[in-house]
Amino acid sequence: MSRTAAPAGLRRADVEEAASWLSGRVVRTPVLRSPVIDKLAGARVLLKAENLQDGGSYKMRGALRAVGRVATADRAGVIAQSTGNHAVAVALAARQHGLAATVVLPVDAAQTKVDRARAAGARVVFAGTGVEERVAAARRLSEETGHPVIDAYDHPDVIAGQGSASLELIEEAERLGTPLDTLVVPVGGGGGVAGACLAAAGTGIEVYGVEPVGCDSLARSLAAGERVPVAPAPTIADGLRPSCVGELPFAILRTALRGVVRVDDEEIAAAFRLLLMELKVLVEPSGAAGLAGALRLAAESGARRKRTVGVVLTGGNVEAALVARLTVQRLAELTTVEGAAA
Amino acid sequence: MSRTAAPAGLRRADVEEAASWLSGRVVRTPVLRSPVIDKLAGARVLLKAENLQDGGSYKMRGALRAVGRVATADRAGVIAQSTGNHAVAVALAARQHGLAATVVLPVDAAQTKVDRARAAGARVVFAGTGVEERVAAARRLSEETGHPVIDAYDHPDVIAGQGSASLELIEEAERLGTPLDTLVVPVGGGGGVAGACLAAAGTGIEVYGVEPVGCDSLARSLAAGERVPVAPAPTIADGLRPSCVGELPFAILRTALRGVVRVDDEEIAAAFRLLLMELKVLVEPSGAAGLAGALRLAAESGARRKRTVGVVLTGGNVEAALVARLTVQRLAELTTVEGAAA
Repeated sequence: MSRTAAPAGLRRADVEEAASWLSGRVVRTPVLRSPVIDKLAGARVLLKAENLQDGGSYKMRGALRAVGRVATADRAGVIAQSTGNHAVAVALAARQHGLAATVVLPVDAAQTKVDRARAAGARVVFAGTGVEERVAAARRLSEETGHPVIDAYDHPDVIAGQGSASLELIEEAERLGTPLDTLVVPVGGGGGVAGACLAAAGTGIEVYGVEPVGCDSLARSLAAGERVPVAPAPTIADGLRPSCVGELPFAILRTALRGVVRVDDEEIAAAFRLLLMELKVLVEPSGAAGLAGALRLAAESGARRKRTVGVVLTGGNVEAALVARLTVQRLAELTTVEGAAA
Repeated sequence: MSRTAAPAGLRRADVEEAASWLSGRVVRTPVLRSPVIDKLAGARVLLKAENLQDGGSYKMRGALRAVGRVATADRAGVIAQSTGNHAVAVALAARQHGLAATVVLPVDAAQTKVDRARAAGARVVFAGTGVEERVAAARRLSEETGHPVIDAYDHPDVIAGQGSASLELIEEAERLGTPLDTLVVPVGGGGGVAGACLAAAGTGIEVYGVEPVGCDSLARSLAAGERVPVAPAPTIADGLRPSCVGELPFAILRTALRGVVRVDDEEIAAAFRLLLMELKVLVEPSGAAGLAGALRLAAESGARRKRTVGVVLTGGNVEAALVARLTVQRLAELTTVEGAAA
């Protein structure tokens, strides 16, 4: 095992191989900047706009890689469970490969994500609100159909695929002559941030995960030295609410991750507004959490000031009504405009 | 004069030269796509995201080119008038070149644009609501200070600079193996669409302008064979309300433009929502008018179906309250969510 190999056997070369396989199959999303965000962070902030990815999130990368391998194994279909983006991504990936897709969503899934999964031709099955109920339903469906489950984060192809977004960001920062010293990625089940750690292996870049307050299974697990489930608290970041960090991600993260930043809904909403009004892109709250974490990290780092911080804006699938609510901080502001226009 | 020279003496080479000078000085904005938009248009739609440009609009291109030339002529400052984006762009360009900037805005200018001009260090002067009042104020200021006026569209550097966005889009479409057959650009004073015509000269690409209903000075001028001012009707596309197409743009457009599409506020709002919710980018109504025009053109073209349509998304500077209002079609929808969250 080489020095940069993770305990799970995954290493940087796996991310590089995934990136190479995905090249031309997914969008090479742009790296964006805003002077206002730089000023707030006191650092150069490079934002990888994976909200502009096919399917509206970086989950497309891992899903396409994993489903591609199933397709070559001559299987007729795939099954996935998630709070939304992974399910949409697997549905789209399955359609590209001519496979059937069944996706298990929580009963309170964002309607946008349900619609997108169906539009991609997937059969949608609803199961409870927690990850355990969805995992059980997915396992049952897999036994019935013989189709494999593509896990949303406990899957080597998914981790390597998601990691390719971080790899592209790291490479683009080098190309611009401003290599990253820090990389910040939101944490749901930990697949994306584990992929980021692999992509950053051997570079000296410090990788941080971001969890919503009360949805901090990773932070607790790192403190305890073993995986610790939580009862996820309510948050606008609906994609960051798994009750426990994945086994395979945790095996990577426990040694490779620099730390976890916790952010509350107000910080996420403020980051959402900055991204929308200053960067001019729509990022879902779960994606905006990455910038919220980077800003908190900047505020806390004091003298150990970061110079160049990379942030993966993981997705942009969000309800119109929530966009409106987050855009105007107070409903009164909206009512005034409505009245003036009438 | 070569075959592709416009009556005003401007030609494709001027846009190429501006593009080359601007390379590295402005953002090379990405070309984005959405399967939903393609389906609605019945064509491949390539969207040039100039809302992601420095200063939030493609006006930065022309302003930087024009102000750059003033700086080399050893002048201490510049003056500009506009409804917003051009003023912001000139202020930013002047700061880059170490020049003073005075910008004349209408008294009802979007607060975002006033704030951005001031943040860029410009002195802001308000003058009436119509272009004549602003032009008169700018001329007075120029006489007092000796600083030249950078016109928002009646200026060769501005036309060539704005045209560089179209040139990049045309080149990117070729590189992707899907050359444009149609190019659609919103029309205010006509500088951007005149630049697009120059960029498309000799390529066979048909260029269309888009005007809001009741702000159709260009359409009327083309029909009359001479510039016809209008009393601009109210529209959410505040950047497309000059009372008359510029002299220099009109000299180019009268022979080079394929046609003008008129769109109403409902079509612009629908395009705004598509760009936000499907493409995941914030485009101001004046910029979204380009997509609205492309969709109307597609609906009207019947058998003469377009294959690849380019659209310049000209800018993204818009008030938060307007974003919220346009995102939810009905205020009731927002109130329901607000109530549910409380």
